[in-house]
This record gives sequence, C-alpha cells and structure tokens, in this order.
Amino acid sequence: MLADRLGSPPAGETWIGDDAAVVGWTRGPLVLAVDAVVAGVHADLGLVGLSDLGWKAVAAAVSDIGAMGARPRHALVTMCVPPAVDLADLNDGVADAAREWGCAVVGGDLCASGQIMVSVAVTGTLEGEGGRAVTRSGASPGDLLLVTGPLGASAAGLRLLRDRRAGGARGSEGVVDALVEAHRRPRARVAEGELARFAGASAMIDVSDGFGLDLHRLARASGVGVDVRDLPVAVGATASEALGGGEDYELIIATADAGRLCDLFDRAGLRRPVLIGECTGDAGERHLRGRPMPPSGWRHDLG
Amino acid sequence: MLADRLGSPPAGETWIGDDAAVVGWTRGPLVLAVDAVVAGVHADLGLVGLSDLGWKAVAAAVSDIGAMGARPRHALVTMCVPPAVDLADLNDGVADAAREWGCAVVGGDLCASGQIMVSVAVTGTLEGEGGRAVTRSGASPGDLLLVTGPLGASAAGLRLLRDRRAGGARGSEGVVDALVEAHRRPRARVAEGELARFAGASAMIDVSDGFGLDLHRLARASGVGVDVRDLPVAVGATASEALGGGEDYELIIATADAGRLCDLFDRAGLRRPVLIGECTGDAGERHLRGRPMPPSGWRHDLG
Repeated sequence: MLADRLGSPPAGETWIGDDAAVVGWTRGPLVLAVDAVVAGVHADLGLVGLSDLGWKAVAAAVSDIGAMGARPRHALVTMCVPPAVDLADLNDGVADAAREWGCAVVGGDLCASGQIMVSVAVTGTLEGEGGRAVTRSGASPGDLLLVTGPLGASAAGLRLLRDRRAGGARGSEGVVDALVEAHRRPRARVAEGELARFAGASAMIDVSDGFGLDLHRLARASGVGVDVRDLPVAVGATASEALGGGEDYELIIATADAGRLCDLFDRAGLRRPVLIGECTGDAGERHLRGRPMPPSGWRHDLG
Repeated sequence: MLADRLGSPPAGETWIGDDAAVVGWTRGPLVLAVDAVVAGVHADLGLVGLSDLGWKAVAAAVSDIGAMGARPRHALVTMCVPPAVDLADLNDGVADAAREWGCAVVGGDLCASGQIMVSVAVTGTLEGEGGRAVTRSGASPGDLLLVTGPLGASAAGLRLLRDRRAGGARGSEGVVDALVEAHRRPRARVAEGELARFAGASAMIDVSDGFGLDLHRLARASGVGVDVRDLPVAVGATASEALGGGEDYELIIATADAGRLCDLFDRAGLRRPVLIGECTGDAGERHLRGRPMPPSGWRHDLG
C-alpha cells in the first residue's frame, strides 16, 4: 500500500485512510479529498450522459469533504478523454455540481487518453472556532448509529436503466424517475455533515461503496462493533441494493446524543436522520437484525 | 472551455489559466495545482518504468507549484490502473518524488481502468510575510528573461531511448545516461522558483509543454512581446528539442532585476539562471535570434 511508504502524519493530522485528509494550516485545518470516476467502471455511458459522469465525479469528492463535517471550497479537475469526445457535456456536469455545493473549480488538467476518466480534488474548511473534523475513528461503544436517508436508490436506478434498455422497465413512473435521478445525479450530504459535526457527532462516513462495507470501515477504524436493527430502504429499491449498492452518499453518523442531532436537523429544516442501531463493545460484531452482516460493496481502496 | 462556465475569481485570487491556482485562506494564500500522466500519451512504458511514470506525475504537479514561487506541501494521488498492474513500482515512484520535494501524500483514490493514469493534486504555501505568488501575467516591457537551466534534455533522452530500442544508441555513455535520466526522472525547480519569488521576479512559468509554447503563454498573459537572443541547449540535445521538446521543467523567469536574482542564486549555491532575452512592448512579438519563433510544444490546455 502507498500509505505504508509514506510515514505517519504528525499529531492532529489525518492522512490516507479516512474520507478526506486533514492537514495543519497557518490557522485552522485544511481538509483535502480526491475521487475519480472512470467510464465503463463507475459510469455506463450507454445509460447515463457525460454530464452525469462529470456531476458524479464532483459529487463523490465533495461527499468525502462533507463526511468530515467540512464545507467544500475549491476543486481541481483532471479530465482524461479520447480526442473525439465533446467536452461541453462533461464541463456542464462538473460546473453544475460544483455550483450545487458552492465549490469553485480553480484549476485542472486536460489529457488525451483512450478511456474517459475524471478525477476531482477538493479542499474543505471546518467553519467555526477550533473546528475539528469528524473522522471514521471516533465512535465509542454505546454511541447510536443514524443515516441521513434511505439507501439503495442509486443501485435501483441503475437496475431500472438497464431494464429500460432491455425493453422491460417496471414500476410507477414517479418512483422510476426518482431512482434514475438518484443514480444519474447523486446528492452529497454536505449541509448534513456540517450540522452533524456541530451537533457533536463522534464518527462519520459517507455511503459511497456500500452500506455494509462503509459501516464496517467506520467500525474497524473506531474499534467498535455495530448492531444494526433496521435499515431504511429507498422506495423501489431492494434490501440487497440498500445494503451493498453504494453511491447513495447518505452519511452514517455515530453520536452519543442523537436527540441533539435530530433537534438541530429539525431546526435547520433538513430531513431528520434515521436511527438504525448502535455501536457495541465487541469490536468484531457486525450484525443486521440479529444476523451477521457482510461488508458488501465495491472495494477500491488505495493500494 | 470549462473556465467560461465558472465565473471569475475574487480579487487577489488566480484560478484556471496559470501554473497553479491561488486562493484565499484564513491567513495567507493557498496554492493548488494538478497534473496527470497517461501511459501511452505522456509516458511510453516500453521505454520507462512504472516508477518513472509515478515520479513524473508528482514532478509535473510540484513543478507547477514551484512556478508560482510556492513550496509544495501536500499531495492527493489518483491512480487508475488495469487490475493486473503491480502497484509497487508505481507507488515507489510517487513516494520517491514526494519525498524529493518534501510533499506529504495525504490522500488518494485507486480505480480500475483500461489504461494507466496517475493524477496528482498538490497544495503549496507562500512562505514569508505577505507572500504573493508569481503568476504568468506580471511581466513588463524591459524585463529580462532567464531560464534556470539548459533545455531539450528530456526530449533528447526520449529519442535516445527509442534509438536504443531500435539497436542504434549513439553518443558518449555519460551524456546518454544524463539525458535518459532527465527523461525518466525530471527535476522540478522548486527551490529555484521560491528564490526567484524572493528576488522579486515579475512573472514565471515552467517549461512543461515546450519552451516556445510556454514562453508564448507567459507573453500572452503578461501582454508583452519576447525577444529571445539565445537559448541554452542541453549537451546532446538538438535546438529543436530545446525549443519544442518540453518536460524539462526548467523555469522561465521574467525580472526587472536580473542582478539581484543571480546574486541570490549564487548565495544559495544554486545554478545561476541563464539570460536569454527580454520582454518588449510589442505584444505580438515572438522572436528567437531575430526570427519569428513558433509556439512549439504539446497542447493540452483545459478544454
């Protein structure tokens, strides 16, 4: 792993291994994250547009900043594209997503390549005096676990797009549209992440690779077990899509004070997080409704 | 162009269009750059190793930070690689280059793809009170132009590697080795860039895409003409390689006070920059030894 080659961060800094890096700065920490989207791997251009691919690359990186409780500020965008590709759509998706989350695209690089790839690096700030990032590793036994919304919508949207291509779309039109939109234009929970930090969340991670896998990462980093009693499933999605589908970008939040968290969300007019279970003292425990929960999802950790 | 979609930076900030972006921060500016290397486009893996590709990706991004007079601090590394690729060599090259320029690799993303691509985003700081970045756009008519070293070595090294593969390597062994090394492991002129800033350089750019093209960019951004009287050519390189080869990563420096610049370099024990010409008031002028100079080099500006 690259991380093994790079030494350890100084006290107070977080490097590789969390949603984003936190590094010291003249005053206050700087939060840094990067995420890449590859056509044919993370996006099927037979099903979604180039603008969707651009949106998704920004959303994924911004989501990592949000999962630290930070506010995205600047983006650097690398686009590797075959010479024949029209960049207008790709640029549109990048610019739309950057605007959506108040992120200025301040630089970039454009390369020729055989395969479309967009990599987005984002900086973030921790607003407020003495702001400290919410890492994956701060959860304690007894902390409650919540998610910011139902899961599985993106995976269900992908399934419906495939069904539609095969001529067999099913389900009510409104539900189908919402799921397809969740796949094409996922929402990073940036306001939610910052609010969870203000509410004293102990640990946080975004559901990018799959709920089972991402919760496992939080539990492993925190040295706790997890007992999940319930999992909110998006309307039209399957339980399996909710558990392992990924790319929902909802946040998993651990906190000792769920009342304060929900109260702050209510006051801010944000959808109230859903209580799904709690952290336990048995570090090896991964339970969903009393049964072992597999760490389902995509695996593409660095190195 | 993406830049057209993104609005204008606030006063005092530099976004897309220079070597790196400069953005406001709590105290002091933050310098941000990104550069990508694609196998088969920027690196021929039949001629150089995977570790060289990793080195080059870091060197190119760090060089952009150096060309603003900034000091590299943190790197985010995106690696897109086919599943069968052994990452150890790639990681070695990235880690070696990051260590070389004192840059901490604090995060990254690893993706499956059909083609090897490494994108490196780097942060930099402007040390010293009230540090202001040296952009491309600050040169005035009458400013002298200097480069930090001879040009064409990387392109000559590539030519020699190709000759060697074809069974026809020529030249003395020492010269060949130095040129091949310049191609495999280019050096970013970070200490030189910072010193040029301290010496009051008015504009600066690194020779990444080709001297002719990069000098043209500086001249265009500054609204000046350029009259180049001489161009230092690396031993074993051709004049054409020096003019259009690129990837030398030497810095082109414009300054009103070349004496102060050279004096500071002497005192720091750095190779003294070479005077090559001057900026003129005729914004359209691009002259090399009295003849029109084409903007030779690679073109891969952001869309």
